[in-house]
Amino acid sequence: MESSRQTLATGNLVRGLPSRSMPQELMETLVERSGVKVERIMSTGHTTPHDAWYDQDKDEWVLVVSGSARLRIEGENEDRTFSPGDWIFLPAHCRHRVTWTQAEPPTIWLAVHF
Amino acid sequence: MESSRQTLATGNLVRGLPSRSMPQELMETLVERSGVKVERIMSTGHTTPHDAWYDQDKDEWVLVVSGSARLRIEGENEDRTFSPGDWIFLPAHCRHRVTWTQAEPPTIWLAVHF
Repeated sequence: MESSRQTLATGNLVRGLPSRSMPQELMETLVERSGVKVERIMSTGHTTPHDAWYDQDKDEWVLVVSGSARLRIEGENEDRTFSPGDWIFLPAHCRHRVTWTQAEPPTIWLAVHF
Repeated sequence: MESSRQTLATGNLVRGLPSRSMPQELMETLVERSGVKVERIMSTGHTTPHDAWYDQDKDEWVLVVSGSARLRIEGENEDRTFSPGDWIFLPAHCRHRVTWTQAEPPTIWLAVHF
């Protein structure tokens, strides 16, 4: 019986990862449409350069899928720690920086920019 | 030292779940803004009623965070199985139905509607 399977975009967030650390964070757009971008990010110890901040024009909803990370929000006096399942909504221009990511196993993020 | 912690929306997808099965799927909006809704869904064996289809005006990106599920896409002749980390992009009006969800431990979905 011939398969009727359609070509819908699918994937798995935690499979098919490169087996070794990357010099940069690995960012992969999973879907981008109607001004919304869903992105997988793999960090292996990467952090935001010291005294640099992400300052984004769009809102971002971000989740740690696996691994672990720490994030500093501008104006806060301590980092926030993220374990698998932890998410945060970062409104546009909420300045933040990644201060630590678990390298091994890698830290997988899911980010929705809108 | 006084905490400077801001009131940003945060949470964890797999903690703080009800300890027993629910008569209906449990849907919780995590953030809704600019026409985008990020939602957590807990299924404990729930499925779409037989011969009914989801037929949505919006695009949906959906992920199985934990548990397991099967989905039928209209026009396909077999179900697709979803394990943790598996995602699919369902364009608006791509008719689909949930044919099975793992009840115990519950199946947690993350859905982005846009």
